[in-house]
Amino acid sequence: MTEKDAPLPRLALAMGDAAGVSAELAAKVLADPAVRAAAEITVFGDARVLAEGARVAGVALDIDTVKDGQRIARKPGRPVLVDLGNCDPATVPLGEISEAGGRFATENFRRALAMGASGEADAVCFTPFNKAAMRLVTPGYEDEIGFSAEAIGFHGVAKEFNVLEGLWNARVTSHVPLKDVAGLLTKQGILNNLHLTNDALRASGIARPRIAVAGLNPHAGDNGNFGREEIDVIQPAVEAGKQAQIGCEGPFPADTVFVRAKRGDFDAVLTMYHDQGQIAMKLIGFDAGVTLMGGFPFPICTAAHGTAYDIAGKGIAHPGAMRNAMLLAARMAARSSVKAA
Amino acid sequence: MTEKDAPLPRLALAMGDAAGVSAELAAKVLADPAVRAAAEITVFGDARVLAEGARVAGVALDIDTVKDGQRIARKPGRPVLVDLGNCDPATVPLGEISEAGGRFATENFRRALAMGASGEADAVCFTPFNKAAMRLVTPGYEDEIGFSAEAIGFHGVAKEFNVLEGLWNARVTSHVPLKDVAGLLTKQGILNNLHLTNDALRASGIARPRIAVAGLNPHAGDNGNFGREEIDVIQPAVEAGKQAQIGCEGPFPADTVFVRAKRGDFDAVLTMYHDQGQIAMKLIGFDAGVTLMGGFPFPICTAAHGTAYDIAGKGIAHPGAMRNAMLLAARMAARSSVKAA
Repeated sequence: MTEKDAPLPRLALAMGDAAGVSAELAAKVLADPAVRAAAEITVFGDARVLAEGARVAGVALDIDTVKDGQRIARKPGRPVLVDLGNCDPATVPLGEISEAGGRFATENFRRALAMGASGEADAVCFTPFNKAAMRLVTPGYEDEIGFSAEAIGFHGVAKEFNVLEGLWNARVTSHVPLKDVAGLLTKQGILNNLHLTNDALRASGIARPRIAVAGLNPHAGDNGNFGREEIDVIQPAVEAGKQAQIGCEGPFPADTVFVRAKRGDFDAVLTMYHDQGQIAMKLIGFDAGVTLMGGFPFPICTAAHGTAYDIAGKGIAHPGAMRNAMLLAARMAARSSVKAA
Repeated sequence: MTEKDAPLPRLALAMGDAAGVSAELAAKVLADPAVRAAAEITVFGDARVLAEGARVAGVALDIDTVKDGQRIARKPGRPVLVDLGNCDPATVPLGEISEAGGRFATENFRRALAMGASGEADAVCFTPFNKAAMRLVTPGYEDEIGFSAEAIGFHGVAKEFNVLEGLWNARVTSHVPLKDVAGLLTKQGILNNLHLTNDALRASGIARPRIAVAGLNPHAGDNGNFGREEIDVIQPAVEAGKQAQIGCEGPFPADTVFVRAKRGDFDAVLTMYHDQGQIAMKLIGFDAGVTLMGGFPFPICTAAHGTAYDIAGKGIAHPGAMRNAMLLAARMAARSSVKAA
């Protein structure tokens, strides 16, 4: 079976926090012809919230709706909403952190993940969550990766990637105090990240990914003058990556590696800490960025931006990032079904 | 005396490393009508190196030349070269770190600084140095700030600022290992930086500078979840700055503060460590960036980029950053002479 003949990938979309722009974005991407053509989409949420999102978005929703438990008859190019009846939009105050908004997002996400875990979906997407609202429902909620791993009983290594047109960013450490970053870097940890990054890029369709590895210290340590992690940890990891046939280079000074990556020298930059990559990626293209959780049995994608409470209900939320998230998920899902076949 | 009637500011320009693009850039800015009109310029260097720079640059040099020790008869709009006869360009290999290149830059810089220290120049500029070449001449050479302080016997606090059109960046820590940054942050240190930044912006002509202060940790610590420096150190410094009538705000997450600054919300961002600002500033406008050393009795400015050994001698070095450095120095010098008058 060639890629052309392959059936459309199956994508589960969880509606996010009902207090933000998530319903509006769901409506916008579900009305988008390119998104509809890219996958068979099953949406988890509430028909009333989605209808309100469509009204705010100013789009006509041409989809099928089934009740929870009903059989989902998938038709190419026509999304299906599984109406969980789990949120009356009138009860969710727009633009505020609320338990109702967090509960809605949590339930929808669990259902979409379950569909991925059971093999009925090839990829999972969600419109934005608010972490504080998620925590009102799941007090230990740290991020989507931890939640997803627990929800589907996954014990491997998963990572967040930030994806812009032609430029990926993965990071070795993330939501930790900056003072702890240096102590968390190990050769093996960086090598694992190189493998994950290489695999994810290949899954997205890049045959020979070119990965730049950032240093940790100013001027990548300036030959040990401003720190030794480059010499002791990062460089050995890059060498190990090269020996594993990964197209990686570095460590490079963090303040010029993104200038080079932006002009096309690399497909991805592996950074050592959160802001090292986030500062660059948000400057380069905040509006269109995609967050991918890679390493799970199926890709999980969403918009890199958040719930945008400040513009909730106004109809002005830009759907570009969420659209790119859906298209990336579909592309990765399609390739993994081809590989598996 | 109004600003209009004031004599032109007096600017001392040191020719930088002869192995890079420094002579080419010196020739280009000395031929630039806007630069010539902005200040009375005294250049320290070698007539042969400058002539070679002009040949590479493809510009005709219309300047006066005096031997070292001769009286400098300044004429508005007409730079004067003090020919130190200290470098035969034939002896400096282009594009390589060399003692000859470093010695030339060091001698010229010392002379320009002395002219500033004696009050005969209102500002100092230099075309790019290479730190490794400087170290071949002055083994303990760390950066331009330390060198300048020692050269002129300055014991106050001076700081490097990165200046793009409409956006300044100053940093609390700089060339130190990343793991040491958190321990180096103090309320008083940040407050000192706020004062220096505020003073430098005002000296450049911004009456009421708007300064954003970056946090240290991801999401500015997320209310203490990813580090407490924002709560314990940075926020108190911002409050102290406000009480001192500085227009400062923050701490803001580092990954969005530059997006806001770039669109005009702030005149300057005060960052906690080197790459936090450098990643952003280099992405926003590497080619046109200026490095300003502020806090000294006179401003010291140069291009933010380096010696560009890889394109030395080719005539393709972009003079934009060096031009901006000269114009910023002239603007700041003019204002300080007005203030002093």
